[in-house]
Amino acid sequence: MIKNITGNRDFIEYLRGKSATFLLALSNTDTVNIDGITQAGVKGYIYLTPTLDAEFVTLGDIRSLDDIPKTGRGVPTPALMTRAVHTLKPFNEIEILDLGLRVSPDVKYFRKYNFNMTPSGSIDIGADIDAEDIFKKGLEFGQSYNPKSDYIILAESVPAGTTTAYATAKALGYSVDGLFSSSFRDAPTIKEKTINRAIENIDLGSDIFEILGAVSDNMLIFNAGFILGLNGRVPLILAGGTQMVGVLLIVNRVLDYMGGEIDSSNLALATTKWVAEDENSNIEALIEMLNFQINSYYIDFDFSSSKNGLLKLYDDGEAKEGVGAGASLLYGILNGLTKENIIAKVETFVN
Amino acid sequence: MIKNITGNRDFIEYLRGKSATFLLALSNTDTVNIDGITQAGVKGYIYLTPTLDAEFVTLGDIRSLDDIPKTGRGVPTPALMTRAVHTLKPFNEIEILDLGLRVSPDVKYFRKYNFNMTPSGSIDIGADIDAEDIFKKGLEFGQSYNPKSDYIILAESVPAGTTTAYATAKALGYSVDGLFSSSFRDAPTIKEKTINRAIENIDLGSDIFEILGAVSDNMLIFNAGFILGLNGRVPLILAGGTQMVGVLLIVNRVLDYMGGEIDSSNLALATTKWVAEDENSNIEALIEMLNFQINSYYIDFDFSSSKNGLLKLYDDGEAKEGVGAGASLLYGILNGLTKENIIAKVETFVN
Repeated sequence: MIKNITGNRDFIEYLRGKSATFLLALSNTDTVNIDGITQAGVKGYIYLTPTLDAEFVTLGDIRSLDDIPKTGRGVPTPALMTRAVHTLKPFNEIEILDLGLRVSPDVKYFRKYNFNMTPSGSIDIGADIDAEDIFKKGLEFGQSYNPKSDYIILAESVPAGTTTAYATAKALGYSVDGLFSSSFRDAPTIKEKTINRAIENIDLGSDIFEILGAVSDNMLIFNAGFILGLNGRVPLILAGGTQMVGVLLIVNRVLDYMGGEIDSSNLALATTKWVAEDENSNIEALIEMLNFQINSYYIDFDFSSSKNGLLKLYDDGEAKEGVGAGASLLYGILNGLTKENIIAKVETFVN
Repeated sequence: MIKNITGNRDFIEYLRGKSATFLLALSNTDTVNIDGITQAGVKGYIYLTPTLDAEFVTLGDIRSLDDIPKTGRGVPTPALMTRAVHTLKPFNEIEILDLGLRVSPDVKYFRKYNFNMTPSGSIDIGADIDAEDIFKKGLEFGQSYNPKSDYIILAESVPAGTTTAYATAKALGYSVDGLFSSSFRDAPTIKEKTINRAIENIDLGSDIFEILGAVSDNMLIFNAGFILGLNGRVPLILAGGTQMVGVLLIVNRVLDYMGGEIDSSNLALATTKWVAEDENSNIEALIEMLNFQINSYYIDFDFSSSKNGLLKLYDDGEAKEGVGAGASLLYGILNGLTKENIIAKVETFVN
């Protein structure tokens, strides 16, 4: 069930049976307001998607709107998979990182870290982020963070986040056209246009933080800092697809720029089969652009045996990943759950 | 499902739901080279059995050879049961004790303790062990060892280990003929011959460590030290059959010799039904030779409902125990697994 994209199985086998803290990094970018750029949520309320995802994962319920986030065709948020696993084999801890949300999740008891960030701007006119400040916040948080668990699963929910990740990688000089995935089955051309416009906005001679400030989002920048701050002190699984590789591509450039090194032996990435086998993107190629090696995994999980037509659209390439779905499935399977257990639980959320 | 050999059920019930560290003690003894002495592995590669067992339990895969250890009739290593339980209800931690292996397991991330030991010699010509040194290493390790879990399951894989255990007990003056079990359904006469030859090698007037140095193996001696070093500080389940009682018989003699006492209330033993009900050995009689009392258990698990002919040979008395199979089954049952769950999982490894 657990397959390697890169590296070996030892790292993940070592985590079998160990306790995990699920860290959910949430952010808004005004890039979502570009018409047709994302379908990660209910039209007009897409800015609420991270808020609702956090509510659903932690509580199994949503409070800040009356329905869960869905794509245009009605495919429900990947948060359902994360929640299903959490109900069957709970994470030891779920904590929320508010990296610039319009609306904070209406969740009590769960720890919410607030870093005094505002949503980032739309990259087509300049994201207007103080990237050095955001990066530093991530770095300091990573240096001081002590989870109550054996390892960390770092997930995200940032609508339009694959667009900002793609723009970020390209702006940092990586040749990534055609490698980033999308919540659409077929990525729209508006995405390419937006990215090209974003890159045109970058002033010649900008340094890495000026570039990130123009084309990136808070989640990407903060998490790059977090990874460098943590520096392998605790095993860390980046829970996501090409967007999370975007974080690593920033880490890689920061290391180039600052001349540092990273201990990546405790750093891994886990995603869904829908990302790993996506014909319109190439996560392996992105990972191989890094100057350091990581173990990366995907989980052989799909909805082919489900009777729910909306869930089956995942197998068709809709939504694909998010809210740590891939890593959550891996965590579940690693701890004795079966594909059938999880599907049955997810179905109870949509029927 | 959980039956007592000696003692009461309170100890094991107390451990229900608690986390376990699975410590796997591995060693080679050249005693395996005596033709017909053991069938715990692939002929010509039996020295690799502990290495492969460790790889299979931790990774679900083997790397140092192309097939799992099997008896002459093709019965697969008991490591399959241990691994099955670990995938369904993972141990919190698996750690490897290298007590003199020819080949270290090819496993990353999992902690491997190396004590700078070499494989012990064949007991028919003298095992040539610095037993006092090995014992001291075990003692010190037990004194300093702090598992990250609530209790320890101490398992072993030492081909020809029942022969060395039998020889050890006999050499220490216990009347144990007919009480030790074997990985063969019917123990071969070469075993008795080897043991008698081993005992003839012992010089008159030898002290306990000189005796152990001639007829024992590293695992038996180290673990005796470990038990005394730990001294009931953490609940400890010896995971094995008559071989693990061999460890306790050493502990018992060391206490005689040194005049100490042991708090055995936190010390138990768990084995398989195939050992507990073996007509050609008597584990209960061996346990009752100790001057201290322990709780001992076996698990009412067999392959009678399996369709796999090779697994069914376990019910016929082949292989019987090893790699902590009995204690692993107990751990699984104690934590909600069923016999059917476990059999189905084991079958996936052999089909």
